[in-house]
Amino acid sequence: MEVSIAKGSGFCFGVKRAIRLAERALEESEGPLYTLGELIHNPQVVGELEKKGLMIAASISDIDRGTLVIRSHGASEEVIEGAKAKNINVVDATCPFVKKAQEHARSLSESGYRVVVVGDKGHPEVDAIAAGLSDVTVLGTEVEAEHLKKVEKMGVVAQTTQSVETLSKVVVVLLGKAQELRVYNTICETTFQRQAETMKLAGEVDVMVVVGGKNSANTARLYDISRRRVRRTHWVESASELKREWFKGAVHAGVTGGASTPDWLIREVANRIASIEARSK
Amino acid sequence: MEVSIAKGSGFCFGVKRAIRLAERALEESEGPLYTLGELIHNPQVVGELEKKGLMIAASISDIDRGTLVIRSHGASEEVIEGAKAKNINVVDATCPFVKKAQEHARSLSESGYRVVVVGDKGHPEVDAIAAGLSDVTVLGTEVEAEHLKKVEKMGVVAQTTQSVETLSKVVVVLLGKAQELRVYNTICETTFQRQAETMKLAGEVDVMVVVGGKNSANTARLYDISRRRVRRTHWVESASELKREWFKGAVHAGVTGGASTPDWLIREVANRIASIEARSK
Repeated sequence: MEVSIAKGSGFCFGVKRAIRLAERALEESEGPLYTLGELIHNPQVVGELEKKGLMIAASISDIDRGTLVIRSHGASEEVIEGAKAKNINVVDATCPFVKKAQEHARSLSESGYRVVVVGDKGHPEVDAIAAGLSDVTVLGTEVEAEHLKKVEKMGVVAQTTQSVETLSKVVVVLLGKAQELRVYNTICETTFQRQAETMKLAGEVDVMVVVGGKNSANTARLYDISRRRVRRTHWVESASELKREWFKGAVHAGVTGGASTPDWLIREVANRIASIEARSK
Repeated sequence: MEVSIAKGSGFCFGVKRAIRLAERALEESEGPLYTLGELIHNPQVVGELEKKGLMIAASISDIDRGTLVIRSHGASEEVIEGAKAKNINVVDATCPFVKKAQEHARSLSESGYRVVVVGDKGHPEVDAIAAGLSDVTVLGTEVEAEHLKKVEKMGVVAQTTQSVETLSKVVVVLLGKAQELRVYNTICETTFQRQAETMKLAGEVDVMVVVGGKNSANTARLYDISRRRVRRTHWVESASELKREWFKGAVHAGVTGGASTPDWLIREVANRIASIEARSK
């Protein structure tokens, strides 16, 4: 059986940067080191960092001293200012593309635009983009967009891992909701490419395996995209979850991974699939 | 046979205003009175104004003195300044909604946006919106939008009589062509309503008659919209073009008219349809 890995799978620029900044802080900073929530949505990577001493706090009130690493999804101004006010050292590992979405949302709001964030309600990136804005709506479907009131000026930003299809459908509805609609397409190029390559590979294989944290929104989107192309799509966090029966009769399997899935994990899953097949011959 | 007239048919605010301004100029101004091209796209109305003394010039170079009425579709800055430089008195009858589209396009261009005008190439309104802008593209379909190069900032305005459906399709394509897409939905509310009411009535009748100038873009759009709902759709400029056989077996006929079609003409057509039926009984 042939096993192919989708191009663009695995760690993106923002995730690599966040891990590098956290590791440097572990080496250099004195006192305890925290993140608010998991640094990235991958249990293996977070587990490794925890072993090295990184602690996960639920909120600023749980931290009294040391260093806070702002995770790749970003945090609100309120959190960052709150930490500084408590003399906590802040290392900002927010993905620069997420930062841009935050800045566009804030600038739209300050210029009098009604702000719409197209993304998953409750996702930390989306929460941080919307945080502190006075006139903001988070929505994930065009049906929700239908319910908005008409205004003169409306501004739109997207969760960086949003699908272009959803953004497009929402924008079409919003065209009828404002005289001026200003859209910042903040979907990151890497996400766009990864989704396109996953869709392509899924169309060529008999079975597809998506590797990534079950709390990773961008991995969930890869799973959806793949499943629309090939029904035999499975989502695992590690190679140990693979089941031999998934590959019965298959001659070509595909593997893809989210932005927070390390490359070694994707390769491990691909190698294990090849070995399952070898044993079943 | 029942004959219904679509709500919102006939003269819109901008057309009424243009005719009022032209008639006042005919009464008040001294010397010859001109428009560049027809004041509105309706032969009967233009014929009446010509009888009263309004002359149609092809370009500024044909006018040496007197008054120039800028028609509802607007004109470029170059034309208006050219007329003033020749000491020609200018009466600006540009529809205020068209004026707004012109202003948005100019302001977008001055702020460094690549400007896209969604409309019919060669239509006087569209030509006037695009005139004098350095970085502008006029396009009427999403296929044409596919060919545009990616830029950082793109601004969109629409011909005021454009269909919302076409604007939406183009905007979806342009989302992938710019990091920031700023859309002014300059389709006028009256156009939107007239199209919606025509679509509704076309779905209820056996035959539909669209009344308006054959050079009127917004009338052409009503014809397309109606024909998609009821195949027995006919386009006439006057009641004399009606044919008895169009209404054979029909129990309910609909009449609609473009923004430049006078109300008396629409009523005349409706009355004639009723009389055709009476005679054929």
